[in-house]
Amino acid sequence: MQELKEPDSKIFQLMVCGRPLDVFLNDIEHFHGFVAPGLVLGGFMVDWARDLVGLNVESDAIVETCHCLPDSIQIFTPCTIGNGWLKVLDWDKFALTLYDKRKLTGYRVWFDLEKAALFPKIQGWYMRSISKKDLPLEVLLEEIIRARRSVLSCRAVRVISHYRKKSKGDIAVCSGCGEAYPASQGNQCSACRGEGYYRF
Amino acid sequence: MQELKEPDSKIFQLMVCGRPLDVFLNDIEHFHGFVAPGLVLGGFMVDWARDLVGLNVESDAIVETCHCLPDSIQIFTPCTIGNGWLKVLDWDKFALTLYDKRKLTGYRVWFDLEKAALFPKIQGWYMRSISKKDLPLEVLLEEIIRARRSVLSCRAVRVISHYRKKSKGDIAVCSGCGEAYPASQGNQCSACRGEGYYRF
Repeated sequence: MQELKEPDSKIFQLMVCGRPLDVFLNDIEHFHGFVAPGLVLGGFMVDWARDLVGLNVESDAIVETCHCLPDSIQIFTPCTIGNGWLKVLDWDKFALTLYDKRKLTGYRVWFDLEKAALFPKIQGWYMRSISKKDLPLEVLLEEIIRARRSVLSCRAVRVISHYRKKSKGDIAVCSGCGEAYPASQGNQCSACRGEGYYRF
Repeated sequence: MQELKEPDSKIFQLMVCGRPLDVFLNDIEHFHGFVAPGLVLGGFMVDWARDLVGLNVESDAIVETCHCLPDSIQIFTPCTIGNGWLKVLDWDKFALTLYDKRKLTGYRVWFDLEKAALFPKIQGWYMRSISKKDLPLEVLLEEIIRARRSVLSCRAVRVISHYRKKSKGDIAVCSGCGEAYPASQGNQCSACRGEGYYRF
């Protein structure tokens, strides 16, 4: 609980993901639209994973939820969805792995519920046992910033799947819409086979 | 083909997604790691969709491939994976839809293979009928920038699925690893049920 007693001046000298705390928070707001608690917590996760893997190692990332965490990776590492260095698993677990893209060894960092028992506002927010009304954003953010790695755990891992670059395979022209699509999908593209998300 | 005759000076006065061409290209390199042709083409797609939907309309986005296009959306609109305003369908079609998040009406913009017949380098790159060796990056980028919307098509659409915010549902504590996970996944989390991507 030592961190909770730190004077604010020390907090604001914090470096996170290679930048001062205020720049870290600004970068989150600029990309994500607002300073979401999940991105701040996620930023500390990335910070720890970066330290463990080493900044000079070319790393890929896997996140285990679509919520918030993909943006922490995209802001604070070179890995993005579009360049294929970040993979997103729709598991809704607040965990990420940063790993050496050649050796496939790295570190998984996760939000540790047991450790969060010492930070009841963070635990209450994550488990949704405290309502938003009873937990103002700035109070929650302050606790996340004071807790930092105290609510996280990490472990060395070897990545055994999801590390390959997604390949397009052969490209065909859809007989339905005339657009390019992967030949592996069958005679027509997904939309023309009725899976489209749109109507005209 | 008129655009191909434009003097370079005019090209560099181009505004794309609300910024001058050089800033547009720098923003791509900064986020994606390099100026990928798919991101530049995708940037022109976003530019058109933004114009059609209107900048004052709060919009969500759907992209139909994991490759490149998600980053064009994330750089040039407020929509990201982590804030949930961008959905990514793994269809490998070079198309995106930007739509009014309340009315669910918007515009789908796609790479039009037929129109690209007038721009053989772009068509050859996309269909992979010209090797990278025979098509230097700067030559391809120049053709994409000269073509702009000439290789794209668009259509007004109504979005009928994939527009809902992904909800977490009830959160449980996994009896295997002790981490938080969605109760809807069963007795244990995905990793403890054997779907993990890592070994210790």
